[in-house]
Amino acid sequence: MTHLSDQTPASGPLPGVHDLGYARLDTDRLERTGDAEVVYGAGKTPSQVVELLRTLHATHPGHAVLATRLAVEAQEAVSAALPEAVVDPVGRTAVLGEAPVLRGTVAVVSAGTSDAPVAAEAATTARVFGAGVDLITDVGVAGLHRVMGVRERLDAADCLIVVAGMEGALPSVVGGLVGVPLVAVPTSVGYGASFGGVAALLAMLNSCAPGVTVVNIDNGFGAGVFAARVARRAAPAEVKAQ
Amino acid sequence: MTHLSDQTPASGPLPGVHDLGYARLDTDRLERTGDAEVVYGAGKTPSQVVELLRTLHATHPGHAVLATRLAVEAQEAVSAALPEAVVDPVGRTAVLGEAPVLRGTVAVVSAGTSDAPVAAEAATTARVFGAGVDLITDVGVAGLHRVMGVRERLDAADCLIVVAGMEGALPSVVGGLVGVPLVAVPTSVGYGASFGGVAALLAMLNSCAPGVTVVNIDNGFGAGVFAARVARRAAPAEVKAQ
Amino acid sequence: MTHLSDQTPASGPLPGVHDLGYARLDTDRLERTGDAEVVYGAGKTPSQVVELLRTLHATHPGHAVLATRLAVEAQEAVSAALPEAVVDPVGRTAVLGEAPVLRGTVAVVSAGTSDAPVAAEAATTARVFGAGVDLITDVGVAGLHRVMGVRERLDAADCLIVVAGMEGALPSVVGGLVGVPLVAVPTSVGYGASFGGVAALLAMLNSCAPGVTVVNIDNGFGAGVFAARVARRAAPAEVKAQ
Amino acid sequence: MTHLSDQTPASGPLPGVHDLGYARLDTDRLERTGDAEVVYGAGKTPSQVVELLRTLHATHPGHAVLATRLAVEAQEAVSAALPEAVVDPVGRTAVLGEAPVLRGTVAVVSAGTSDAPVAAEAATTARVFGAGVDLITDVGVAGLHRVMGVRERLDAADCLIVVAGMEGALPSVVGGLVGVPLVAVPTSVGYGASFGGVAALLAMLNSCAPGVTVVNIDNGFGAGVFAARVARRAAPAEVKAQ
Amino acid sequence: MTHLSDQTPASGPLPGVHDLGYARLDTDRLERTGDAEVVYGAGKTPSQVVELLRTLHATHPGHAVLATRLAVEAQEAVSAALPEAVVDPVGRTAVLGEAPVLRGTVAVVSAGTSDAPVAAEAATTARVFGAGVDLITDVGVAGLHRVMGVRERLDAADCLIVVAGMEGALPSVVGGLVGVPLVAVPTSVGYGASFGGVAALLAMLNSCAPGVTVVNIDNGFGAGVFAARVARRAAPAEVKAQ
Amino acid sequence: MTHLSDQTPASGPLPGVHDLGYARLDTDRLERTGDAEVVYGAGKTPSQVVELLRTLHATHPGHAVLATRLAVEAQEAVSAALPEAVVDPVGRTAVLGEAPVLRGTVAVVSAGTSDAPVAAEAATTARVFGAGVDLITDVGVAGLHRVMGVRERLDAADCLIVVAGMEGALPSVVGGLVGVPLVAVPTSVGYGASFGGVAALLAMLNSCAPGVTVVNIDNGFGAGVFAARVARRAAPAEVKAQ
Amino acid sequence: MTHLSDQTPASGPLPGVHDLGYARLDTDRLERTGDAEVVYGAGKTPSQVVELLRTLHATHPGHAVLATRLAVEAQEAVSAALPEAVVDPVGRTAVLGEAPVLRGTVAVVSAGTSDAPVAAEAATTARVFGAGVDLITDVGVAGLHRVMGVRERLDAADCLIVVAGMEGALPSVVGGLVGVPLVAVPTSVGYGASFGGVAALLAMLNSCAPGVTVVNIDNGFGAGVFAARVARRAAPAEVKAQ
Amino acid sequence: MTHLSDQTPASGPLPGVHDLGYARLDTDRLERTGDAEVVYGAGKTPSQVVELLRTLHATHPGHAVLATRLAVEAQEAVSAALPEAVVDPVGRTAVLGEAPVLRGTVAVVSAGTSDAPVAAEAATTARVFGAGVDLITDVGVAGLHRVMGVRERLDAADCLIVVAGMEGALPSVVGGLVGVPLVAVPTSVGYGASFGGVAALLAMLNSCAPGVTVVNIDNGFGAGVFAARVARRAAPAEVKAQ
Repeated sequence: MTHLSDQTPASGPLPGVHDLGYARLDTDRLERTGDAEVVYGAGKTPSQVVELLRTLHATHPGHAVLATRLAVEAQEAVSAALPEAVVDPVGRTAVLGEAPVLRGTVAVVSAGTSDAPVAAEAATTARVFGAGVDLITDVGVAGLHRVMGVRERLDAADCLIVVAGMEGALPSVVGGLVGVPLVAVPTSVGYGASFGGVAALLAMLNSCAPGVTVVNIDNGFGAGVFAARVARRAAPAEVKAQ
Repeated sequence: MTHLSDQTPASGPLPGVHDLGYARLDTDRLERTGDAEVVYGAGKTPSQVVELLRTLHATHPGHAVLATRLAVEAQEAVSAALPEAVVDPVGRTAVLGEAPVLRGTVAVVSAGTSDAPVAAEAATTARVFGAGVDLITDVGVAGLHRVMGVRERLDAADCLIVVAGMEGALPSVVGGLVGVPLVAVPTSVGYGASFGGVAALLAMLNSCAPGVTVVNIDNGFGAGVFAARVARRAAPAEVKAQ
Repeated sequence: MTHLSDQTPASGPLPGVHDLGYARLDTDRLERTGDAEVVYGAGKTPSQVVELLRTLHATHPGHAVLATRLAVEAQEAVSAALPEAVVDPVGRTAVLGEAPVLRGTVAVVSAGTSDAPVAAEAATTARVFGAGVDLITDVGVAGLHRVMGVRERLDAADCLIVVAGMEGALPSVVGGLVGVPLVAVPTSVGYGASFGGVAALLAMLNSCAPGVTVVNIDNGFGAGVFAARVARRAAPAEVKAQ
Repeated sequence: MTHLSDQTPASGPLPGVHDLGYARLDTDRLERTGDAEVVYGAGKTPSQVVELLRTLHATHPGHAVLATRLAVEAQEAVSAALPEAVVDPVGRTAVLGEAPVLRGTVAVVSAGTSDAPVAAEAATTARVFGAGVDLITDVGVAGLHRVMGVRERLDAADCLIVVAGMEGALPSVVGGLVGVPLVAVPTSVGYGASFGGVAALLAMLNSCAPGVTVVNIDNGFGAGVFAARVARRAAPAEVKAQ
Repeated sequence: MTHLSDQTPASGPLPGVHDLGYARLDTDRLERTGDAEVVYGAGKTPSQVVELLRTLHATHPGHAVLATRLAVEAQEAVSAALPEAVVDPVGRTAVLGEAPVLRGTVAVVSAGTSDAPVAAEAATTARVFGAGVDLITDVGVAGLHRVMGVRERLDAADCLIVVAGMEGALPSVVGGLVGVPLVAVPTSVGYGASFGGVAALLAMLNSCAPGVTVVNIDNGFGAGVFAARVARRAAPAEVKAQ
Repeated sequence: MTHLSDQTPASGPLPGVHDLGYARLDTDRLERTGDAEVVYGAGKTPSQVVELLRTLHATHPGHAVLATRLAVEAQEAVSAALPEAVVDPVGRTAVLGEAPVLRGTVAVVSAGTSDAPVAAEAATTARVFGAGVDLITDVGVAGLHRVMGVRERLDAADCLIVVAGMEGALPSVVGGLVGVPLVAVPTSVGYGASFGGVAALLAMLNSCAPGVTVVNIDNGFGAGVFAARVARRAAPAEVKAQ
Repeated sequence: MTHLSDQTPASGPLPGVHDLGYARLDTDRLERTGDAEVVYGAGKTPSQVVELLRTLHATHPGHAVLATRLAVEAQEAVSAALPEAVVDPVGRTAVLGEAPVLRGTVAVVSAGTSDAPVAAEAATTARVFGAGVDLITDVGVAGLHRVMGVRERLDAADCLIVVAGMEGALPSVVGGLVGVPLVAVPTSVGYGASFGGVAALLAMLNSCAPGVTVVNIDNGFGAGVFAARVARRAAPAEVKAQ
Repeated sequence: MTHLSDQTPASGPLPGVHDLGYARLDTDRLERTGDAEVVYGAGKTPSQVVELLRTLHATHPGHAVLATRLAVEAQEAVSAALPEAVVDPVGRTAVLGEAPVLRGTVAVVSAGTSDAPVAAEAATTARVFGAGVDLITDVGVAGLHRVMGVRERLDAADCLIVVAGMEGALPSVVGGLVGVPLVAVPTSVGYGASFGGVAALLAMLNSCAPGVTVVNIDNGFGAGVFAARVARRAAPAEVKAQ
């Protein structure tokens, strides 16, 4: 097969970019924003994920690097090729490299069992981006006593990530209990008129509790990055990653 | 002006219908469903509202009859023309005729100050349709202690009506506390991505608490009818209307 | 594979919760709301469904416990592992444990053949939650004589569940015939501009018949819980489950 | 004021077009499609409506010509300037010129009082376009006995126009009773989740009764044109307009 | 497996209904509306389709009966079991029984190659419901000369069915050329912002040509039923089906 | 009144910006993109519009400067204060300064009378941005002969702007006739399911004619800028503005 | 007029609530979350706003209290009745009471002139909630040099609030430049397919820059609360409010 | 199997149409619009694609002909059957026949790695339609330095195609830098609230940069046709295709 695209005059090499053919890594991002680029695994082959992780690791030797949204095949390929990587099948993530020194605490709170993958992605991301994590699961609003029972842990955090699908009510309840900055993550858990997470997204955008911000549906990664940045600034005291 | 519609051969008189020209009253509905027809005031002139209320009252001598969604002008016209009517400017309703014997209790719970009109419409409707009402206001989810503080009153009701705008989370919280049948009413209170009550509607349809049903946005009337029917069946003990 | 989540400091044990690792059962719900928790089968493996049903049964010895949304594989696993369970392939449910004493009657009315699974889920749920059921199928609005023919059975019920897809008109027709509390269930039956049940959902929310409430698309379970609660309150006379 | 648009080189005169500056009348349409152009009054001044009607009448001397969507001011201007015109304040229409010979019958059926303007627009349009009309009002689905009571009149028509707002269920009920071609007209009557007539529109598009077609929300005019064309073809017998 | 639904007290036999267990045939529909019920094949097994077709044929001996939306497996099962059936793999239909006498002509016009299945379903349905068909394909609006070239055939029809996906412009163009009643069928052909046929549906509902009515997306069947009813009334002259 | 905002430390002066307090003019834009900034009149007071136009004119002495979306009051204020300005009440624009040398031709084609304001805004914008304009109005798709009659003028243009509301079909028809680059402008003309221009927007995005691009609803300005840029590049021959 | 609601048995006094009849102030919120309740002015009369501000001030003597969304009449009433209040007509806010000690810096960045009210509301809120503010206006993405020119000020902030309407692109551009936590506020500025701010909201939720969170359309208040909480935690150094 | 459609009287042969049974080629389009018809591969079998390409090539001997949206199987079939064809697996296109003389330059700019297929389709289309292409990839708005670094190449082009998914911000940034006509292509890259490309589409329609036009989601082909037409007109200088 002759490929027309082979004949395309490629744009020249760009500074701060590592070109792998099928993707370019923004190796300058760490310097610009303080955080390294991340491998977004959706739509990539297992071997691409492995190569990207290895390249990111090589160009950021002192940092833990992260891959997200890994299919089971990609998780297995990473475990086989990079045995020192830490793979989480629940959150579908892989982490390679020395854990950062952790500063501050992000409490990741989730409503239902089905929200666990998004909560795990948020927790791992927050750790890789340098914050400690307190994971609090299964505190749905239909069982208020559970929410009340963890109020002190919520209050002790520097930033909260609250993950919920269906009616997405948990951020309003938590946001009314404590004054900690709160990032709400709607999940696509639900059916019918949940419209793939839209119901939860709208509920969170309309929260009656002040100081609630929102990220895209299922975007545990974005919430983790944001919360880690908040927590790191809030807590200069350093703790070595667990 | 000659009106083409004047020349239209009208459909003949229908049984069980009282024709006022601009509207026809279904005077058979009481017999068919146990509840009389109601004057829906939106889009009607003050004098039409007065005439419709008077006609309904005349055809249902032993019953209280109800008008809803009354503009201020219509409320004033009713007060002037029918001094024995009870007008509620908050719920925009008017009631004419002897209060029914009340059976059972509907607890009407609302989240915020702005939800008061819908809650009042629901409460008045439930009374006119024969149930006692316990009105519990301002128990938003951002102040959980208020919800917890009224749990016994919630538990004592035969049916709950829970009214909320914005993120519409209150029905889930209440529905997780007690096992009483619960009708949720989304309101159009909010702005931006509340989309005129759609956010609250979707949240209520996706409630994680089992046994929550929903009516149209701002439909306090429908919730009141439904809840009164449930409460009347649940509580044969009769109480004279307050 | 080393799992990062294995290292996560888990939140401590919560009272009234039975932790199975992949899910936590709210064993206190029965006391709080009068009804036991239920196994929602969507997204769970057959062996998880079996274990959850067995655990729920063990913690609620005197009650029938319910699993819903079971794939064929899960239905077969339950039949094999728990031969005393009653499995319904139409409604995709399984029931384990002694049938409750039934109080009152829920009439479940469905419009078309394709609505049968949702109607069956509603019927089974209502029974497990303690109400008798009268199932009336195939009474679509395009054949009014069928609706008229069952009017007495509708009138005799303590609560109605009306299930319909496509244009969702049946609740309005039934709600105009009788004054029994009515829960409408839109189904995802249809194509094109039915938008997966949205057309039926909107029709039901806008019903011109007073006293119609609505649940989420395909949510036979929620309608069954609600209707059983209404029927049980309405009818103190007890009947042993069929 | 100097107007830039005055300097615009206008496109030249087009054949079969009568240019009034602010609008061009397609005077050829009658020959092409058998029906004359119509004055759509929305957004036009009273004097423009009068002039357009007068011009249409002059270019179609043997035909009745129609204006729709007339504001009260435009209705009054037409009555004053063209006393021979027939103005209908309910349907907001004006008709000028000799009534056509009517062929066949269109039955216009409407659900609620608030649907009257759309039904009247449809009825007047059907007459101007040459069909007789049988107007049947207030036969909502919540009172089935009324629908059943007019079945013979429905069956006798050559084409049905069924007008309904809110849940839009009437076309399905009527379409299941008779085999006459049926055009459904959703109206913007309703609130909240009726979304300005979208709920009724979707219900009608998803009707379970075969042979139901639909026009735009509140489009009584379009339904009237269509139904008159069907009725004229069906009934060669001629009747002088009433 | 013991099935809970087996124990459900079934609703009793209804008159005019043929119960096959998994479906009930409305055998009275022919008498009520003049047209027999039809087998909607979506979601049915091949053997169910065969049995339903055979039963319909037996209960309507003098009529052709129709099955629509047949998967390839169902088409093959019908061909094998009912060799006298006429199967159309393009329109995914099967017809069994003597062709009706055809009255009047329905012109089925389609825009693009991908619209062929919907056009074929409409054409077959119109024939089975008793009208002759003139099928005119590939006359998209981007090639106006093709539309102009068939104007006489359009004008000769008693009813038009115009099928188009993507921008759905063809009905407006055709509706401006001739005054024949026109039913527009939007198809799901397109991608991106066609939203599965919604773009075409909206375009058709907003057609600037008067007298255009619309059916659901891909609903060739509904258009065929409607158009045949119109054509049969328009043309009493009888022609034996081709 | 003391204003908190008075105390706000303002951001310092930015280069290439002319600060008027309530707005800042990007006086560098001409150099950067070849076209001057424009006064968008929506939400501005008449005196602000006058001052902004005068300032833009002073900073761009050799260019015509443009104001769009002017309310009647703003048009009158401009005419009074800047008598040399050319005001167009149809397109709601004002132009101040020497007309540019025009290069190439933009044909602006509109479908209906109500689309005239958007077409006029597009035409004036194209002229101010340096292209000649051929304005062709009232060539709706329901009268194809008009479209066919102007084919040569369409073919002679360097860029086409096609303006249409309702079903938005005109760009597809025009785009199938000629190979000139075509920008489609949906307008908010319509009602009901036109959803304020969304129906036309979707139709244009799904056009079956290749080479059609689209701008926002009612965005005659954007289409004019774009088309003028295309026409200027296509036609180096210079013509003094009319 | 006799008011039915006057007879309603009101729910008893709640602890931590100051009841004004038409509203209840949550006077416990300060203790619970560290921030006092706020007067949301939309839908309140000028005298209610004055009374609520005065009451909040009396119950929180050492704190500045805030009112938002004030109509011009309410702003004037506050200025007249509470001359010590600071009223901002741009942001439509009023502040009463001693300014808090400011900790940390929130940079409020806005894209266009029309976004100023939302930016001002965010800035005032952040100050009242205890953070210093750096306001940076008119840095739209169509003039990148302006964004680049303020990079150091962005980098120096503890939290960013980025306000933009129309296409909502500014948060992505800013989020790619610096690693500071960023809250994006979509505004309702725009027309046509901006759908009242939905286009900007969706763009922000889908930002390709990591660490961007979003609040409701036009919700400058919510962004201000959140950002102040982040900035206060990040910067223990105290500065007296300007 | 007997096929009913076999018996359908086909519409007669149309001039300028090459009928292949399953599709008709508009062989006149080249003469009418200057560009040949194209094979849209979606939904076609590999052998149909091969035959259509071969037929188009035979009827347009002096032109390169194009097939788009080819599945892998169709790409392989074309490579095997037509070895002289140039197949691009990234853009999923095939080109057959002599490359045209290229005039002018289209710069195709894409934001992220996942946008490559749409960018490649646009680039190949532009070349086949006669323009030179400068392909510039991976210049997302989160790395502004990359955009700034290619400004001269952007400025040198005759037309820009800017391809972006997610928040779709790149066209606004590029459109603010240069005054070249710009066609924006939203892609379906994203998840959650990107709604399959709707977020990017809306952002582009609302771009604050003047002179941005938009095509359908993922419609690289349409953008390529349009841009080539613009570039060819702008640059009469001829260059032999690379």
